[in-house]
Amino acid sequence: MKIVSEIINKKTHGNTEIINITDDIQEILKKSGIENGLCTVFCIGSTGGITTLEYERGLIKDLPEFLNQIIPQGKKYHHDATWGDGNGHSHLRSALIKTSFSIPVINSELTLGTWQQVVFIDFDNRPRNRRIVIQIMGK
Amino acid sequence: MKIVSEIINKKTHGNTEIINITDDIQEILKKSGIENGLCTVFCIGSTGGITTLEYERGLIKDLPEFLNQIIPQGKKYHHDATWGDGNGHSHLRSALIKTSFSIPVINSELTLGTWQQVVFIDFDNRPRNRRIVIQIMGK
Amino acid sequence: MKIVSEIINKKTHGNTEIINITDDIQEILKKSGIENGLCTVFCIGSTGGITTLEYERGLIKDLPEFLNQIIPQGKKYHHDATWGDGNGHSHLRSALIKTSFSIPVINSELTLGTWQQVVFIDFDNRPRNRRIVIQIMGK
Repeated sequence: MKIVSEIINKKTHGNTEIINITDDIQEILKKSGIENGLCTVFCIGSTGGITTLEYERGLIKDLPEFLNQIIPQGKKYHHDATWGDGNGHSHLRSALIKTSFSIPVINSELTLGTWQQVVFIDFDNRPRNRRIVIQIMGK
Repeated sequence: MKIVSEIINKKTHGNTEIINITDDIQEILKKSGIENGLCTVFCIGSTGGITTLEYERGLIKDLPEFLNQIIPQGKKYHHDATWGDGNGHSHLRSALIKTSFSIPVINSELTLGTWQQVVFIDFDNRPRNRRIVIQIMGK
Repeated sequence: MKIVSEIINKKTHGNTEIINITDDIQEILKKSGIENGLCTVFCIGSTGGITTLEYERGLIKDLPEFLNQIIPQGKKYHHDATWGDGNGHSHLRSALIKTSFSIPVINSELTLGTWQQVVFIDFDNRPRNRRIVIQIMGK
């Protein structure tokens, strides 16, 4: 049984930018030599999120628009009273989409569908240097 | 340490149909002989979702109604401009509910509550033949 | 490879009370002696949820307010026709936030950010005695 953990770095623009990190994960999986097991993708921080999405130019507009309808930027949040940094919406979106995601590995491949990409979303209201953990456990 | 991976097939009607897959998972767990470990359930594709729900006839109406309020079918999504298949809402619901779910296994049992079932939800707007990965890692 | 599973107990007030369980998890991790692996946190029951949040007094008001906007308590749900216990909103919030969450462990530490706490949320409409599974697999 092997456990391979790597941290990848991403410079982002924030503002619910959606970044396709599938290739990064596949490269780490290949290097690991692990054939069967579980790959966990984890965003360090409380204003990001990890999920899957068909990564195409329509949906990467639709998802931020949807999130802005249910959790609007610019609304008054109690969080602003604590820090005054105007990113209450970023924290709520992160708590909703969540910062962790796990994908089975079978025969050296992630079990993703053809139009199913793993995406990191940066909900913060400013550019960030992000660290994302990729951990693969298996044999 | 053992890793058992199986893919189950489900014919669905789509349209946010909710399918209780708890028995399928329990059968694979039993066959695996694994006593302690982690079971991951993963939907292949970007228009499905996995979560837990008390599987009863009220909630299997409530959940689709709720999702249709926040992510309406029939609304114009940018996704339609790419493919024209009218299932932008399916992709957004999938990105929100997410396609992966993990349950601890203790003493050969999933640690689910009595009224807590594992459900696969097909958000697509047409019948589908679905493949769902059940992976158990443990000993 | 080691698998350590513990169940922690929490008395809650319900009503979307948010409880920081990070210290409980860290204590079990420390006791386990596991240096690298995966920690899964799982709420037994269909009216709770696990996610990460900056645990500060603003956000622990913002998150319940947001959830009450999209899934209002007091609205008529089909679930009430089955049990009449008035907690349809609790089940929907749980299906949305989900009852499972996994965090990588690297060098004996959870890979959480400084302002990223693991929280259990009790969505039920009454006080509960809750059991939450903490499972760590690794070496």
